[in-house]
Amino acid sequence: MYKQLKTTVSKNGNIQKLSRIFQPFNVIPMESQTKQKEKEIHSKSSKLMLELGIIKQSSPGCFNLLPLGIRALEKLTRIADEEMQSIGGQKVEFPTLINEKLWTLSGRVNEVKELFKLKDRHAHSYILGPTHEEIACELLSQSQHSYKDFPLILYQITNKFRDELKPRLGLIRSKQFCMKDMYSFDIDYEKAMETYSIVSDSYENFFNILGIEFHKVKGAAGVMGGSLSHEYHFSAEIGEDTLVRCSHCNHFTNVELVEENICPICKEKNQLIKSKGIEVGHTFFLGDRYSKPFNANFINKTGKNINLQMCCFGLGLTRILAASIETLSTDQEIRWPKPIAPYSVLIIPPKAGSKEEPIANSLLERLYHSLDNIQHVKKDILVDDRTDLTIGRRNIQGKKMGYPFIIVLGNRIKEDPVLFELHDVNGGIQVDLAFEDLLTYINEAYNK
Amino acid sequence: MYKQLKTTVSKNGNIQKLSRIFQPFNVIPMESQTKQKEKEIHSKSSKLMLELGIIKQSSPGCFNLLPLGIRALEKLTRIADEEMQSIGGQKVEFPTLINEKLWTLSGRVNEVKELFKLKDRHAHSYILGPTHEEIACELLSQSQHSYKDFPLILYQITNKFRDELKPRLGLIRSKQFCMKDMYSFDIDYEKAMETYSIVSDSYENFFNILGIEFHKVKGAAGVMGGSLSHEYHFSAEIGEDTLVRCSHCNHFTNVELVEENICPICKEKNQLIKSKGIEVGHTFFLGDRYSKPFNANFINKTGKNINLQMCCFGLGLTRILAASIETLSTDQEIRWPKPIAPYSVLIIPPKAGSKEEPIANSLLERLYHSLDNIQHVKKDILVDDRTDLTIGRRNIQGKKMGYPFIIVLGNRIKEDPVLFELHDVNGGIQVDLAFEDLLTYINEAYNK
Repeated sequence: MYKQLKTTVSKNGNIQKLSRIFQPFNVIPMESQTKQKEKEIHSKSSKLMLELGIIKQSSPGCFNLLPLGIRALEKLTRIADEEMQSIGGQKVEFPTLINEKLWTLSGRVNEVKELFKLKDRHAHSYILGPTHEEIACELLSQSQHSYKDFPLILYQITNKFRDELKPRLGLIRSKQFCMKDMYSFDIDYEKAMETYSIVSDSYENFFNILGIEFHKVKGAAGVMGGSLSHEYHFSAEIGEDTLVRCSHCNHFTNVELVEENICPICKEKNQLIKSKGIEVGHTFFLGDRYSKPFNANFINKTGKNINLQMCCFGLGLTRILAASIETLSTDQEIRWPKPIAPYSVLIIPPKAGSKEEPIANSLLERLYHSLDNIQHVKKDILVDDRTDLTIGRRNIQGKKMGYPFIIVLGNRIKEDPVLFELHDVNGGIQVDLAFEDLLTYINEAYNK
Repeated sequence: MYKQLKTTVSKNGNIQKLSRIFQPFNVIPMESQTKQKEKEIHSKSSKLMLELGIIKQSSPGCFNLLPLGIRALEKLTRIADEEMQSIGGQKVEFPTLINEKLWTLSGRVNEVKELFKLKDRHAHSYILGPTHEEIACELLSQSQHSYKDFPLILYQITNKFRDELKPRLGLIRSKQFCMKDMYSFDIDYEKAMETYSIVSDSYENFFNILGIEFHKVKGAAGVMGGSLSHEYHFSAEIGEDTLVRCSHCNHFTNVELVEENICPICKEKNQLIKSKGIEVGHTFFLGDRYSKPFNANFINKTGKNINLQMCCFGLGLTRILAASIETLSTDQEIRWPKPIAPYSVLIIPPKAGSKEEPIANSLLERLYHSLDNIQHVKKDILVDDRTDLTIGRRNIQGKKMGYPFIIVLGNRIKEDPVLFELHDVNGGIQVDLAFEDLLTYINEAYNK
């Protein structure tokens, strides 16, 4: 009977079968959950992602991203690409191996403790790029630019490296991580502030698309230099940053910017409640902090050579992936932001040998191809073809994985009209729907 | 008059304007072309790519990929993704930082001279991954697998690192390069050979899509180990590999496999002509060379634990990008494989103040949006909005950049019916076409 499903599937070469996905399960032993050290290393999201074969550790702080993890990360990358390009961001790729001299010139080489350093066979020194202000300025300095060429916004989405003292919480604090880093160049402070504000809006868009509540707070510039910065946080108990929420005006602030328990926004006293946040994005106005030592200049209207005004903008994409799961999941079941779930829809056909099986194949095929014609659902449908398992067991696993929609071909497919069992997993809704209603439901969820 | 174009453009937020692209020109001084050292470092492709702002060197062997370069590389990546996924390849990402112990276990740590090595702050040793057989096997060894789980084909598209003695020829021999590397696992030799053959076919597909003549030759396995390998070469004078072509049977062979001037395919003697090739792909049957030391095993039908049979398959994507340009270009003008040119179509509107300008705007808009409705051309159209330059000058630059199709709104747009000047750059054809004929021409070029 398992063969029947296989036949159906092979007729439609591109039906994606769960049984073929490399997803090694790896139950983290219960007793380890009580050890203090394990508690520090793990979080809800890292445990779920490791357990369910989304990531796998290679060495502390270094992970293999497995097929379901890569699917999610690539979706997140596409959203970031679209947002950055919609405001004129131009994608580039800076080298990972950065000539150490550039960081000596900026003065950061001894300032940043987390630098990975190495030498090549000719004894030239490099660092593995954790951020690329120096490289971006060096690039700009290599050619002449007119004031007409700005604003210029360059960004990349690449792996960055930090020699963390204590890598922890899976992708939330890892040695290698995927970051969207963007560098803007403008001809004066006002123009730079315009760009800063445009990018800030695009960051809000980006987080709104994910649908996760975020808190934007003024930040301390730290090793980046510059005079203005903002941080974007997701709320989570495991967060390393402390935020305070003012129960009077409801605004969040970085605890470092609070003096004498006074809310810096509404000036009320003693209304501040501490909470924890995971920093998922950071924006900085840098002025000429880097453009000056590197001579990243432009020629102004009167022919003068002037330092560019620079901002930089980061989104930690692998961290956002993990922090989203941390924020949305239960202890036992993953929940994804709908736009980045590895698959949008999981279809569960009946168990082999069941009464429903004989009529299920043609229904499955019709359903798959109708769904595959829906925008944003296309190529994003997975069939749990392990028909030796009961529907119930596969449904439990599907919910644990958090596919946003699970469609079960259960016993009501024998009715007239046929009814499908739809689980709207993020919404916590279960409903039996006829074919057209089912398609409408899914379509509206993705194309409102 | 320049403003008029701007207005048109802003009505259509997504019209892509050449003037906004970060493409710093950088003429390589003529005298340097004669220096022997420069000759060794540069090639036709590296000179053109540097000169035309497609890449820019950061340090020897390390490059910034600029916006036009990234567009081409992302197209190439998508083609590789589609081909690998069509044969069941599952995309993953292995860490760049590889625990050195894994390479000690495989015995390769002292064998490969080009390893970048580094230590973290706890004095743990890592290498920067040039290839990931060890990591893939270690990953497999961490979970149990049934014979039913195979074939398993995992691949990644990531940056790799080699501490080259003499980085040269731009992206052809660089310290950091983007590679598609794939690892297959099978339960026995026969199944592994089946997978090897399926992947080999997909490699031929991949190169056929690019449309570049390639030579597949038997290879020497080298440091990879294993008993069978094939290399894929593009012909180019600057190639580092020597191939021989038999003028009797026309087959190519690696010179290392030729004895006594006898063609190993047709056995004819003294018919061999030497030529140079750039290796752009390599496939290996590895057997249990890595699965054995790492215990990458499966449970067979009788419950026995057996070493997996492994193959690995590489495509050097940044090298293919450069080698394609090397193969197709003239000394003065880039030519791209059509599917990976940074933009498919360049539109050149009339010079500001010309007689044609008043009627050009509405034509441009109509043309842009009609082209933008053609599959595989959508979002791939660039307008050279620098209308302070003559059509002739922009046309020369467009050809130098090698956009496959250049459409000039020249003096025949005043005729009835309107005629557009189409330059089919790869085909070396220039023809004046009416609107519908023009669309048909472009559509057929991309959707045959």
